[in-house]
Amino acid sequence: MDEAERQSLIAALHAASDAARVETLAHFRTEGLAADTKETERFDPVTVADRAAERAMTEVLARMRPHDAILGEEYGATPGTSGLTWVLDPIDGTRGYLSGTPTWGVLVGVSDAVGPILGAIDQPYIGERFVGGLGLSEMTGPHGPRALRCRKARPLAEAIVFTTFPEVGTEADAAAFRRVASRARLTRYGMDCYAYALIASGQIDLVIEAGLQPYDVQAPIAVVTAAGGVVTDWQGGVAHHGGRIVAAANAEIHAEALALLNG
Amino acid sequence: MDEAERQSLIAALHAASDAARVETLAHFRTEGLAADTKETERFDPVTVADRAAERAMTEVLARMRPHDAILGEEYGATPGTSGLTWVLDPIDGTRGYLSGTPTWGVLVGVSDAVGPILGAIDQPYIGERFVGGLGLSEMTGPHGPRALRCRKARPLAEAIVFTTFPEVGTEADAAAFRRVASRARLTRYGMDCYAYALIASGQIDLVIEAGLQPYDVQAPIAVVTAAGGVVTDWQGGVAHHGGRIVAAANAEIHAEALALLNG
Repeated sequence: MDEAERQSLIAALHAASDAARVETLAHFRTEGLAADTKETERFDPVTVADRAAERAMTEVLARMRPHDAILGEEYGATPGTSGLTWVLDPIDGTRGYLSGTPTWGVLVGVSDAVGPILGAIDQPYIGERFVGGLGLSEMTGPHGPRALRCRKARPLAEAIVFTTFPEVGTEADAAAFRRVASRARLTRYGMDCYAYALIASGQIDLVIEAGLQPYDVQAPIAVVTAAGGVVTDWQGGVAHHGGRIVAAANAEIHAEALALLNG
Repeated sequence: MDEAERQSLIAALHAASDAARVETLAHFRTEGLAADTKETERFDPVTVADRAAERAMTEVLARMRPHDAILGEEYGATPGTSGLTWVLDPIDGTRGYLSGTPTWGVLVGVSDAVGPILGAIDQPYIGERFVGGLGLSEMTGPHGPRALRCRKARPLAEAIVFTTFPEVGTEADAAAFRRVASRARLTRYGMDCYAYALIASGQIDLVIEAGLQPYDVQAPIAVVTAAGGVVTDWQGGVAHHGGRIVAAANAEIHAEALALLNG
């Protein structure tokens, strides 16, 4: 990839994230937030903001990157000819968004035929953006820019583990998660994509989740990997198709987690 | 209370909160955060920042409110003669602080012989401060000031419930919590004091916790009550001594939660 193409992708990443910020903040912490339910059994709110943000990102990308494909959470796939696909989750953590917590995020990723090459985790309310890939590993936020780097290896007994839902996935998934979490120093819940930003920021050691979609993981994979971390499925295979995911700050704790998840 | 006294208390509340912001941010998301362990069985980190922030608040209050008593999480009680006590938790949510999440807070409360009269929940990283009492019910944050008001009554089936730890307290406490949470629309975890700010902001309906200390609840009581909410223990009695707490957006859902907790 030449430098002009690289800069074009990075510029489009920021422009799409900026567009989503406007739309998501227009509805965040307002009354009368409309929430449809996509699934009948599990609560899965989809808000007006979710759809408006994806449309805004799609418009930006159609203008700035007209030959790339788009895969969005809300509106599905738009084909392209460049071999690159933008993978968009306008609001990752809609339950958190509906609750007013500042830990949902806008996920914007770029993947080629092999997997994610660039991604952003954006938290519009705080004004934080975590970016990784194409030589970048950095964040901006209320206290200025800083480099992103995962923390060094430490024993699991000293590690901090995150997952979003205490129930994790199936009962077997939850049991596997507890084999890891029960040996860790600290387990925390409820952060959605923000947990991946915390790994890339060197704050925590593991994020273990199940039932993820491709658009939930592709931008986080780019951010965590660029910061030196490892993201795979629970068998150690590629993670960008979603499913059961383990994101780790380093290869050592990744191996320790995989062994226990499959133990 | 005359207006000069009221203004003095509000000014000291902000000055103490400002002082704690500086000290807590100096150590937030840095490497090598020192964490002692106060308890041997449960993980309860106490950081350098925790202690420095309480000292900074105490110094401000000694200067601005020399006749008031102080009760702090870290350094205990300092007597006073005014009949007012400042109740300080320099970092509520130390586990979240250690993990880099932006949902811990500085709690500053003022109580008289009856209970809390003024309080602030401050989130230094985001730059948010939620204040309630003495005629105030307002917040400031990255997107400017706004009034705080709890949401109106809605059925529990439409309500959002928060607690910090899925295990809640004892097994009986957890079972009681689940009687409420299983009937709610949505249950979320891991927010510590930030959940009380979300009630006062009109975003969620219930916070139900156990094992709280007086310094964990007194500032949140002032903020939630000023915004129109109700905070009691699980029997409907006064909450400011800590223990098992239910904070509710309105009297209707408070009554519904109490009935299920004791059902």
